[in-house]
Amino acid sequence: MKIMNGFLGELLGTFVLIVFGAGVNCGVNLNKTYGKKNGDWLLITFGWGMAVTMGVYVAGSIGSLGHLNPAVTIAEAAFGLFPWSKVVAYLLGQFIGAFLGAALVVVHYYPHLKVTKPEDGNHVSNFATLPAISNPLFNFLSEIIATFIFIYVLLNLGNFTVGLKPFIVGFLILAIGMSLGTTTGYAINPARDWGPRLAYSILPIPNKDSSHWEYAWIPMVGPIVGGLLATALFKIQ
Amino acid sequence: MKIMNGFLGELLGTFVLIVFGAGVNCGVNLNKTYGKKNGDWLLITFGWGMAVTMGVYVAGSIGSLGHLNPAVTIAEAAFGLFPWSKVVAYLLGQFIGAFLGAALVVVHYYPHLKVTKPEDGNHVSNFATLPAISNPLFNFLSEIIATFIFIYVLLNLGNFTVGLKPFIVGFLILAIGMSLGTTTGYAINPARDWGPRLAYSILPIPNKDSSHWEYAWIPMVGPIVGGLLATALFKIQ
Amino acid sequence: MKIMNGFLGELLGTFVLIVFGAGVNCGVNLNKTYGKKNGDWLLITFGWGMAVTMGVYVAGSIGSLGHLNPAVTIAEAAFGLFPWSKVVAYLLGQFIGAFLGAALVVVHYYPHLKVTKPEDGNHVSNFATLPAISNPLFNFLSEIIATFIFIYVLLNLGNFTVGLKPFIVGFLILAIGMSLGTTTGYAINPARDWGPRLAYSILPIPNKDSSHWEYAWIPMVGPIVGGLLATALFKIQ
Amino acid sequence: MKIMNGFLGELLGTFVLIVFGAGVNCGVNLNKTYGKKNGDWLLITFGWGMAVTMGVYVAGSIGSLGHLNPAVTIAEAAFGLFPWSKVVAYLLGQFIGAFLGAALVVVHYYPHLKVTKPEDGNHVSNFATLPAISNPLFNFLSEIIATFIFIYVLLNLGNFTVGLKPFIVGFLILAIGMSLGTTTGYAINPARDWGPRLAYSILPIPNKDSSHWEYAWIPMVGPIVGGLLATALFKIQ
Repeated sequence: MKIMNGFLGELLGTFVLIVFGAGVNCGVNLNKTYGKKNGDWLLITFGWGMAVTMGVYVAGSIGSLGHLNPAVTIAEAAFGLFPWSKVVAYLLGQFIGAFLGAALVVVHYYPHLKVTKPEDGNHVSNFATLPAISNPLFNFLSEIIATFIFIYVLLNLGNFTVGLKPFIVGFLILAIGMSLGTTTGYAINPARDWGPRLAYSILPIPNKDSSHWEYAWIPMVGPIVGGLLATALFKIQ
Repeated sequence: MKIMNGFLGELLGTFVLIVFGAGVNCGVNLNKTYGKKNGDWLLITFGWGMAVTMGVYVAGSIGSLGHLNPAVTIAEAAFGLFPWSKVVAYLLGQFIGAFLGAALVVVHYYPHLKVTKPEDGNHVSNFATLPAISNPLFNFLSEIIATFIFIYVLLNLGNFTVGLKPFIVGFLILAIGMSLGTTTGYAINPARDWGPRLAYSILPIPNKDSSHWEYAWIPMVGPIVGGLLATALFKIQ
Repeated sequence: MKIMNGFLGELLGTFVLIVFGAGVNCGVNLNKTYGKKNGDWLLITFGWGMAVTMGVYVAGSIGSLGHLNPAVTIAEAAFGLFPWSKVVAYLLGQFIGAFLGAALVVVHYYPHLKVTKPEDGNHVSNFATLPAISNPLFNFLSEIIATFIFIYVLLNLGNFTVGLKPFIVGFLILAIGMSLGTTTGYAINPARDWGPRLAYSILPIPNKDSSHWEYAWIPMVGPIVGGLLATALFKIQ
Repeated sequence: MKIMNGFLGELLGTFVLIVFGAGVNCGVNLNKTYGKKNGDWLLITFGWGMAVTMGVYVAGSIGSLGHLNPAVTIAEAAFGLFPWSKVVAYLLGQFIGAFLGAALVVVHYYPHLKVTKPEDGNHVSNFATLPAISNPLFNFLSEIIATFIFIYVLLNLGNFTVGLKPFIVGFLILAIGMSLGTTTGYAINPARDWGPRLAYSILPIPNKDSSHWEYAWIPMVGPIVGGLLATALFKIQ
């Protein structure tokens, strides 16, 4: 039963996270929305910060630990902070929840997707991440660094699903976005990138552009490496 | 006496909510205000977020549960989380409070309403909601989706009138606005839409434009449907 | 000794409040500052919100109740929520602290005051308040309404100097600024207006413009009337 | 062992502080980032505020007092609030951590540093501070005043590493930046300025401009003077 709670908590928490996160991207970048202001970084970073806060509250209420992120789950498991027996359930919940969240955002913004051409802001980057300057080595380093800092601070926050801690976690994500997210769009989470990228690929989205799967290894591998480094430092600090 | 507290708490809480909410709309959209910057989405979403925080504190202090929203009251009653016997008192308080809040904002901004023509930003949308793209099916879906996410997260926050929880609820509303509010203006609350729409209709507002009652069924029915779906998911989660 | 604490707490708390508040106005409106963006309402309202938070923390730590505002002190005294015997000490502390805070801001921004002409943003309104549209009746009503809402919510927050409540009070001020402050600049506090206005009048400020004392009765009388109405409603609610 | 915790806590806390702080400067000012908007003061002040919050959480978790600032450490020691025996360990940790944080930001933003000329925003001021108007006397006064207000409020917050207090400290830094930081860029911390300035001087940064060491005495001496004045006032209040 605990594993079921973990799976459901991660699924619904990540679902909520992506609804808010992909939602704010679309609200800022698609035509004729009330929030249209291409690339408005403050709104985007605030939206993603609060997205994580709300996702963690939902996950914690259902009974998971509110990772919502395979990089957290894998790093904690690798260093004995989380049981390997629950890893598969957590990862499944995270990827499925992220996919479903992106699908709901497609429905919500359908009329706006229809009136926005790629050159006006209708890209896969409203759902998944793309680098501002394409440079695989440094993009990879950026995802490692941003995730390293994020998960290192997160581990130092203590139990982050209780009380007002999910709110602080949201401001941590806001800070990561403002300070380290402007290079690669801060995936810092493989599920947050791959779930919505898959949704973008296979759903009938109007004016669809490339899904850029050639880039997808970076937001998959970078965050996992960054998470392992962060947890290693945390264990020896 | 408890029912009286519920009625008064909802009335004064919703009154405060709409004073802040309609207030920030007018401050951003009317001519010659210090906040004039048509459609400044960050200011508008922050204003409405804090509007709800302050309304919930007032309602909770008087002794109601701080719903301030018929979609919350009806959905909770339908699933046994709130007694039907108090529903009428709550709904009455919410609609009356919303009407009175809008009326006070008309007085507060009277000189600015006088110098703003509809084409400069003097619309019913400073008080009630209008869609960015008129499309009844998708506007209806948008209100359902936004309210579903809002009330689903709200239910997972636990008792939200105590301690600092009203502050978190405000940031939930901020997040809904940023992420899902850019399509229909996120009524997500029938009283928040109908009370001020009625005030706009019948009060002597300078440069008055259409009240768009033909749209009003969407912010009435959509939030109620969304609220019922959210509460159903919460009950089976 | 308690009266001395009250006097000092109000003095130093209001001093801090005005340093932050007049500081953000100057940072936004004076030439060649890093924050120059005339009338940037989000920055101004955030700055004043946090100004109050920090002032209340200082006052509470010294041992006053953190009113920092004659409209709060007088209204609470009038309805038996605060002893008349301490009113004079509180008011003196508030006005003196506000004057000293404005004086420090003049020193801090001196080189920027020197390079800003009145037509570029060097006005008394960086220190005291002026209406966006001059209309004595509605300006007076605006100050009454904004203070009424502010103090009514404040009273419903309970003891606001403890724990994280000063932070919530800061966001209440932020919300008042965003929603109701765009008409008259939300004095909502006679000391916040008169202390800095006097400083502006008598200190050797470069490029000095009119101090507009003809307007000063409104931010003096309006907030007191609004505070009395708010406390009356709170007592009968 | 306690001294080791102090050293490590200050080192890693200040490291995190500078990663976020120098990070947001680069994200706003360097070319082709998603946050590019030269000098966007709200983003910069928010980024630095949250930088301090996260640094304090990390330091507190490791077991230091989360000063992250020689001006705090020296002032507290001078007035008997902190043991002199730990001062060297704290200061060493602060300067080394700040240097390392800046170095990581150089790696993170390397491709963006390569495409940004000094005239487009590639300056030492992304790492250390420079005044908006060069005027040694008033720049010195500005750093004294801003640090005085910052540390005076900080001391009145009580133990600021526990619970949600690091979050309030972040908003204090945000407020200092908004209200008093627009003149000299608010070093208010010798390590925050000298560590990154040294990193900028000696690391192979593309398109490097002057390190402006001729200005560096001000962010070294000003904050120390301001901190001493603040602690003196706190002790006699």
